[in-house]
Amino acid sequence: MQNLSQYIRSIPDFPKPGIIFRDITTLIENGDGFHVAVQAMTTAVKDWGPVDKIAAPEARGFVFGAPLAASLGAGLILMRKRGKLPCKTVSTTYELEYGTDELHIHADSIKKGDRILLVDDLLATGGTMDACRRLIEDNGGIVVGFAFVIELTDLAGRQKLGPYPVSSLITFEGE
Amino acid sequence: MQNLSQYIRSIPDFPKPGIIFRDITTLIENGDGFHVAVQAMTTAVKDWGPVDKIAAPEARGFVFGAPLAASLGAGLILMRKRGKLPCKTVSTTYELEYGTDELHIHADSIKKGDRILLVDDLLATGGTMDACRRLIEDNGGIVVGFAFVIELTDLAGRQKLGPYPVSSLITFEGE
Repeated sequence: MQNLSQYIRSIPDFPKPGIIFRDITTLIENGDGFHVAVQAMTTAVKDWGPVDKIAAPEARGFVFGAPLAASLGAGLILMRKRGKLPCKTVSTTYELEYGTDELHIHADSIKKGDRILLVDDLLATGGTMDACRRLIEDNGGIVVGFAFVIELTDLAGRQKLGPYPVSSLITFEGE
Repeated sequence: MQNLSQYIRSIPDFPKPGIIFRDITTLIENGDGFHVAVQAMTTAVKDWGPVDKIAAPEARGFVFGAPLAASLGAGLILMRKRGKLPCKTVSTTYELEYGTDELHIHADSIKKGDRILLVDDLLATGGTMDACRRLIEDNGGIVVGFAFVIELTDLAGRQKLGPYPVSSLITFEGE
């Protein structure tokens, strides 16, 4: 596989001093890079068993969750902020640095026993995705695993998400 | 092609009385429906010439723009609300029922002469997409056309977007 990290733009001190933001827009704007990333995610999850649906948080999660769903022939569940979905929803709450936030799915999005793969652009502490996992399981879904493009290994999100399978294409450490 | 309209959920009086909201979540949660929709969009644009990049507005535009980009081997440009993109941006303003809103892209996302296809879930009046077209053209891109899943034909968005090619998979009229 190509070295996909070459396509990631690193932006120091965004969104605040001391943070290096890993920008995926330079990856996805490159047709080859984006295609290779989606293919690599497809390959990474192929031994995890059948996937009925992918669930992805807005908005960058949609960027990878949607083509991966199309590639796998799976459905896509949008996990959205409050007020964005038009029908009755169920939600999960997760901690932010200051306060909490929440993600919603439609209450009828999961059929009991659906095998669901969680997808996002980046794994940091894993707090958001752990909350998403609870939401899926509390509503009758079976979590197949987690697929990310980027993993910030020093933040130990992978440990938080265990024992589920976790895949990432690009890792950054020590920053 | 399957009748994709069977997968669309229509919600009366959302987000306000008198409006019928056309909900694409029931389409994309169905693996077959989502796959067929992406394939049909791919087919619809195949005679429009090469596509270097797709540009799609957040967030539902990403849901179809991303898999279509992956399918075509094109890059994907995210068109986002203010403050969401980490580097220098350029923006376009469009009218809402009350006031205005804006969409941004990174200032370096378009290379001069890039052939760019605009994608969104739904064509209503075409006001947002017409503003997106101007943004693309003002920054050196060539607009290949517009691809939508749903078109509300009574709102005449297609006329607003002419003379560019416009494709939609599902049409609703008279409501």
